[in-house]
Amino acid sequence: MKTVTLFTLGKIREEWIKEMIQKYLKRLKTEVSFQWVQVKSENQLLAKTKEIANVYCLDALGKLMDSEAFSQLLGLHLQEGNAKIGFIIGGPEGLSNEIKQKFPLISFSPMTFTSQITILLLIEQIYRAFEIAKGSKYHK
Amino acid sequence: MKTVTLFTLGKIREEWIKEMIQKYLKRLKTEVSFQWVQVKSENQLLAKTKEIANVYCLDALGKLMDSEAFSQLLGLHLQEGNAKIGFIIGGPEGLSNEIKQKFPLISFSPMTFTSQITILLLIEQIYRAFEIAKGSKYHK
Repeated sequence: MKTVTLFTLGKIREEWIKEMIQKYLKRLKTEVSFQWVQVKSENQLLAKTKEIANVYCLDALGKLMDSEAFSQLLGLHLQEGNAKIGFIIGGPEGLSNEIKQKFPLISFSPMTFTSQITILLLIEQIYRAFEIAKGSKYHK
Repeated sequence: MKTVTLFTLGKIREEWIKEMIQKYLKRLKTEVSFQWVQVKSENQLLAKTKEIANVYCLDALGKLMDSEAFSQLLGLHLQEGNAKIGFIIGGPEGLSNEIKQKFPLISFSPMTFTSQITILLLIEQIYRAFEIAKGSKYHK
């Protein structure tokens, strides 16, 4: 199955984030398998991302995307049956230059958001990306 | 007191949005009074926005702002004691050209988000704007 893996640094405790993720995942479950890996350190992040060919970092200064461009990016990497894509969201301290140089940086906004809000934006945009690809009414 | 008014079109029922708003408002209550006006139509929107000199529409195609620029915008309009600023967030159908031509358009992202997520982004950025102005650790 097509797999999207989200890597976050540091523990996310807020219940509302988990509820929102569940809400979108329920809608996405026939399309994609979603994995959320919470790592403790950047070393652990480097180890865990090794098995995924296409991993992107979310960064305010990265390449700014609109919903259609993000949908195309997902479509590009998830064309085949067992294709995988990964996204990294830093903790409150951000990400080191080593990580930012290793992975391509994409941006949802020039604004700074909390990690929790960035996770929510990512999940909703993944759901929207599949709706855009299907040409559904969700994205107008 | 300084007042920020949020105008939304259509009813927002989700409890998590109300909880998130309350969470940020609790932290903001010494700085600013926040009002949330849910209008049923654009005519009602035009009537209700009349008493506020500076009203902005949030639109994906508006002037893209980063958190610092948004903080400056708020600071500019809320310098004085009883200053007011307003923000309009459209419903699932978006806003008419009449509304978009009447108010300056600002953008938090070229991406399309749901109204609920846009409200959350706005509230968090208002809180962040005051923290930026104070030079606090919240915004790094």
